[in-house]
Amino acid sequence: MGRVVIDVMPKPEILDPQGKAVVGALPRLGFDVFTGVRQGKRFELEVTGEVTEEVLEQARRAAETLLSNPVIEDVVSVRDAAAAGAGA
Amino acid sequence: MGRVVIDVMPKPEILDPQGKAVVGALPRLGFDVFTGVRQGKRFELEVTGEVTEEVLEQARRAAETLLSNPVIEDVVSVRDAAAAGAGA
Repeated sequence: MGRVVIDVMPKPEILDPQGKAVVGALPRLGFDVFTGVRQGKRFELEVTGEVTEEVLEQARRAAETLLSNPVIEDVVSVRDAAAAGAGA
Repeated sequence: MGRVVIDVMPKPEILDPQGKAVVGALPRLGFDVFTGVRQGKRFELEVTGEVTEEVLEQARRAAETLLSNPVIEDVVSVRDAAAAGAGA
């Protein structure tokens, strides 16, 4: 079974109220080193077989059309979860 | 400026309604290879200096206390965005 990981983040120029809430709460809880927080989405898509180039191509198109809003969000990465350094 | 990336996913045994909605919508849009989807959160935390071990330790504690609900979510990874293979 293969798995594709897709990361979506709000565009830098877009206000991110969830990130703002987190960055305000961190120092109150004693975490004093962080100056900014952005909150985005992470998707894990399962396939029965291996993660082929065809699977990745479908995942890229799904990321741009269904999983993100291109007006306010960037697709940061689409990758095979099993690949070296996939951060999964 | 350094950046820490934190990934949080719903635990496997927890129902994920957003993921279910996505997996239902994918075939209707012509994406036919995916059998399951889970939706989680991705955080990017900025620090003014470098991402030291102290920064990562604060990020790990923040991930476990503020950024995830340990009853229903797993912290999948906490890493320096600049590190090789960080998937950022």
